[in-house]
Amino acid sequence: MRELEERILQDGRVLPGNILKVGSFLNQQIDVSLMAKMGREIARLYAGETVTKVLTIESSGIAIAVMAAWELGVPVAVVKKSHAANQSDNVYSAEIKSYTHGNTYTATLEKDYLKASDRVLIVDDFLASGEVINGLQKMIGEAGAVLVGCAVAIEKKFQHGGDTLRQSGVRVESLAMVESMTDTGLTFAEP
Amino acid sequence: MRELEERILQDGRVLPGNILKVGSFLNQQIDVSLMAKMGREIARLYAGETVTKVLTIESSGIAIAVMAAWELGVPVAVVKKSHAANQSDNVYSAEIKSYTHGNTYTATLEKDYLKASDRVLIVDDFLASGEVINGLQKMIGEAGAVLVGCAVAIEKKFQHGGDTLRQSGVRVESLAMVESMTDTGLTFAEP
Repeated sequence: MRELEERILQDGRVLPGNILKVGSFLNQQIDVSLMAKMGREIARLYAGETVTKVLTIESSGIAIAVMAAWELGVPVAVVKKSHAANQSDNVYSAEIKSYTHGNTYTATLEKDYLKASDRVLIVDDFLASGEVINGLQKMIGEAGAVLVGCAVAIEKKFQHGGDTLRQSGVRVESLAMVESMTDTGLTFAEP
Repeated sequence: MRELEERILQDGRVLPGNILKVGSFLNQQIDVSLMAKMGREIARLYAGETVTKVLTIESSGIAIAVMAAWELGVPVAVVKKSHAANQSDNVYSAEIKSYTHGNTYTATLEKDYLKASDRVLIVDDFLASGEVINGLQKMIGEAGAVLVGCAVAIEKKFQHGGDTLRQSGVRVESLAMVESMTDTGLTFAEP
């Protein structure tokens, strides 16, 4: 998606540890108009599929997931990174290693919000090594639901998570695919 | 907002510890169409004010904040509950006691995303004792920005945070105001 690529080139910053910082428009501060366009593009890419639910994980993917779900006319289920008092114990869970926090956490989703009849589209902000999507995929499997595919804002292709998923037969759509990234520049893979 | 009240009566559940669970449509699972209507109502309530930024905190308020900001045509700034590797150290911070998690955390917001020129609308899912809004208000004060007001989906009036804020001169709008809440029933305050 050209507009997202241009915005990354304009406002993104490469930090030590292969971190691409897009806090000014994608997560710490959210450009809602851009999110809406991204949601529309995700809905267009998956228009040929029947999707009954968008699945994301708190918190950076929520804005994009909400906009994609709005276009698709389906609800969003949000996987939690910690257990809260308003959550039941009847949950799907997965251990996920966090790239930006450097820890491992137990992600949970109440079973009420993901059913065997669901056809699920995973939406998130970043796809790097694929740890998060693997965790969500495990929950979808436990629920007996169908994974229709994944849509991410930014794929860091050089961390190979996206290609591993594709090789396993999962459809993965990235609105911007970063091929290489250094202090001095960033290139995108050709669509 | 009648539709939100009806949905709370239909799908909300009262849990021990004064917790109102609305996970099926407001946070763990998000009814995006309802969020869009709530965003429109928040924008209508603040139509007479100049708002330049919506401020929320991860993660349950993000969906409503995004929809309100979309209607208002402004960006959202998201206060973080933990420090991540993609965040700078140049932050506003506040200690906030969490009602649903039973702990105290350090909330942070990068200074780049809140400026003295901003006129800020705080948007969140719940208002109970007012701890979260007090924390965000402190950050807005540090930035030298103007707090235009607050808009929350559900105010638990019997926990008095909303009235304390109003008495201090802050405009607070609640889309549903719970007057009392027990295992057997729930009543709303008259608008």
